[in-house]
Amino acid sequence: MRNTNRQWKLARYPEGLPKPDDWVLEEGPVPEPGPGQMLLAARFLDVAPYMRGRISPAKNYAAGVSPGDLMIGGGVGEVVRSNVDGFAPGDLVVSDFDFGWQDYAVLTPARVRRVDTALAPPECWLDVLGLNGITAYFGLLEAASMRAGDTVVVSAAAGSVGQIVGQLAAIAGGRAVAIASSADKAAACKALGFADAIAYREVADLGAAIAAACPGGVDVYFDNTVGPILDAVLCNLATHARITICGTISLAARFGEPDLGERYWRQVLVARTRIQGFLVLDYKDRYDEARARLAGWVREGRIRQRFDFAEGLERTPEAFIRLLESRNTGKQLVKV
Amino acid sequence: MRNTNRQWKLARYPEGLPKPDDWVLEEGPVPEPGPGQMLLAARFLDVAPYMRGRISPAKNYAAGVSPGDLMIGGGVGEVVRSNVDGFAPGDLVVSDFDFGWQDYAVLTPARVRRVDTALAPPECWLDVLGLNGITAYFGLLEAASMRAGDTVVVSAAAGSVGQIVGQLAAIAGGRAVAIASSADKAAACKALGFADAIAYREVADLGAAIAAACPGGVDVYFDNTVGPILDAVLCNLATHARITICGTISLAARFGEPDLGERYWRQVLVARTRIQGFLVLDYKDRYDEARARLAGWVREGRIRQRFDFAEGLERTPEAFIRLLESRNTGKQLVKV
Repeated sequence: MRNTNRQWKLARYPEGLPKPDDWVLEEGPVPEPGPGQMLLAARFLDVAPYMRGRISPAKNYAAGVSPGDLMIGGGVGEVVRSNVDGFAPGDLVVSDFDFGWQDYAVLTPARVRRVDTALAPPECWLDVLGLNGITAYFGLLEAASMRAGDTVVVSAAAGSVGQIVGQLAAIAGGRAVAIASSADKAAACKALGFADAIAYREVADLGAAIAAACPGGVDVYFDNTVGPILDAVLCNLATHARITICGTISLAARFGEPDLGERYWRQVLVARTRIQGFLVLDYKDRYDEARARLAGWVREGRIRQRFDFAEGLERTPEAFIRLLESRNTGKQLVKV
Repeated sequence: MRNTNRQWKLARYPEGLPKPDDWVLEEGPVPEPGPGQMLLAARFLDVAPYMRGRISPAKNYAAGVSPGDLMIGGGVGEVVRSNVDGFAPGDLVVSDFDFGWQDYAVLTPARVRRVDTALAPPECWLDVLGLNGITAYFGLLEAASMRAGDTVVVSAAAGSVGQIVGQLAAIAGGRAVAIASSADKAAACKALGFADAIAYREVADLGAAIAAACPGGVDVYFDNTVGPILDAVLCNLATHARITICGTISLAARFGEPDLGERYWRQVLVARTRIQGFLVLDYKDRYDEARARLAGWVREGRIRQRFDFAEGLERTPEAFIRLLESRNTGKQLVKV
């Protein structure tokens, strides 16, 4: 056990794509848990695209991190000291947002869930059994009202949410088509059960590739990127298509700048498309329902996961930037 | 009664904004009704923004008019000769799409509805008691799920659908804010019951004007235009805003060309906006429900209408172009 706590604090709001020195690693004493609190040692720390919106002064759905603040983020931690009945040293817990990019966190039981390694390894609790799984579940089955027989296109399909969406689409009786940046990632998607996969950086005409992969048009589009991939899908909509706008990762490098390009409102009207801006937090009251079903599919081996680990707290900003640059395959995490 | 039938036929697909000579007026014999048919003399002919999509080779939700074809369009006609029991000369009927821009039409009872002038004057059957009313009804109450207390912004608010949407929003317990091109039209909207009205060609910053008129943000946006008005609304969304994309009149002059500009997907996500491309034909099974309720409100004087009449069949293309240029106030029709 370390005898200091290292914390990544935001140095400044990044301009464009974040750089490692937009954060600074500060070292301080290991904190003391107060009454009703636990001291947790980081085992896995989360990096995720939503964090880009939290380190910007632009309007967002939740409060952001200000320069000087500890960077937010979920984590799996091991209880080191506990002032809480029922939590003992060695227990593993997960926090969705409140661990922070640091070696040690002090949290109350209300801010964590228990990790049951009999069901799935610790890292899964930051992914399919964490908010990524719940995001995929409600974003696909509720926001996009996916039905059996739908052709479901997923962008950033080799990423954390995308790979779960593809498997859920298959479970729900649909045909999942992955869009990922490279041939390697496309292959990884197919290995997880996508019926087809497009490596968008390797096709000359993404619209034509989508048309070929979706001869009846796109019924459901689960969008993690917006930008050129959304554009290409909007030109290939089936009548009554449904789109979930879950992420805007293509904007990560130019956050807050105008997103210029072609708008496709006429196509949206002609196909009578429904587009839903999606935030998992709106489904908070139903997380247990989603988790129970996801856990069942994990247990049955019907949802598998691929991870991409960075090693060491000191590499956390790097791992985050790697993610924003689409260099990860599978859920990106930091192993501490 | 004329002894010839004049028909406006499409001469060519218009480029950009249609011009009068994109149609040609041909003169021929008055048609003879066959068994089960009626000969109808035009009293009012419809011109409407949806027609722009029908005279383009671009993909649309319904078959288009080809060069050489009679121009489609609804109309109120008077029965001149009838081979149908129950329809006698002098009766008035309305057809939503099948009259055509001509002096005389031959139609079967399945293609028309009776006009009951005890309930409302003939022209209303092409407006609030026709597809415009039904469009406003389902577009606002179903597609946008408008609820009491919502702030409802309407574009092209002095037009046929827009003026009904504003009155329905007030009936449903909302606060309707009109966006119309001129101060005159804005005043016309207020006279019909909109709580506020913005003359967009007369404000320096439409976004700021919307923010001022909607201090809690825009809950519902009923969009007849897309383009810069939609852009300004997308920057002023309340959380869980709902948008009905009902029309794309701002594109009328550049139909089929790329619609370039800023996209606001990040704002759509942050506000968890639901956007619905809307076509009234999808609600065909429920027209009777809508008509019954609309007729009730017309009877009670809770929905009023303003019309803008052009006189004479020969002015039909002109009236249509006038509409596409936003020069009408109220529902544009042609009196024959």
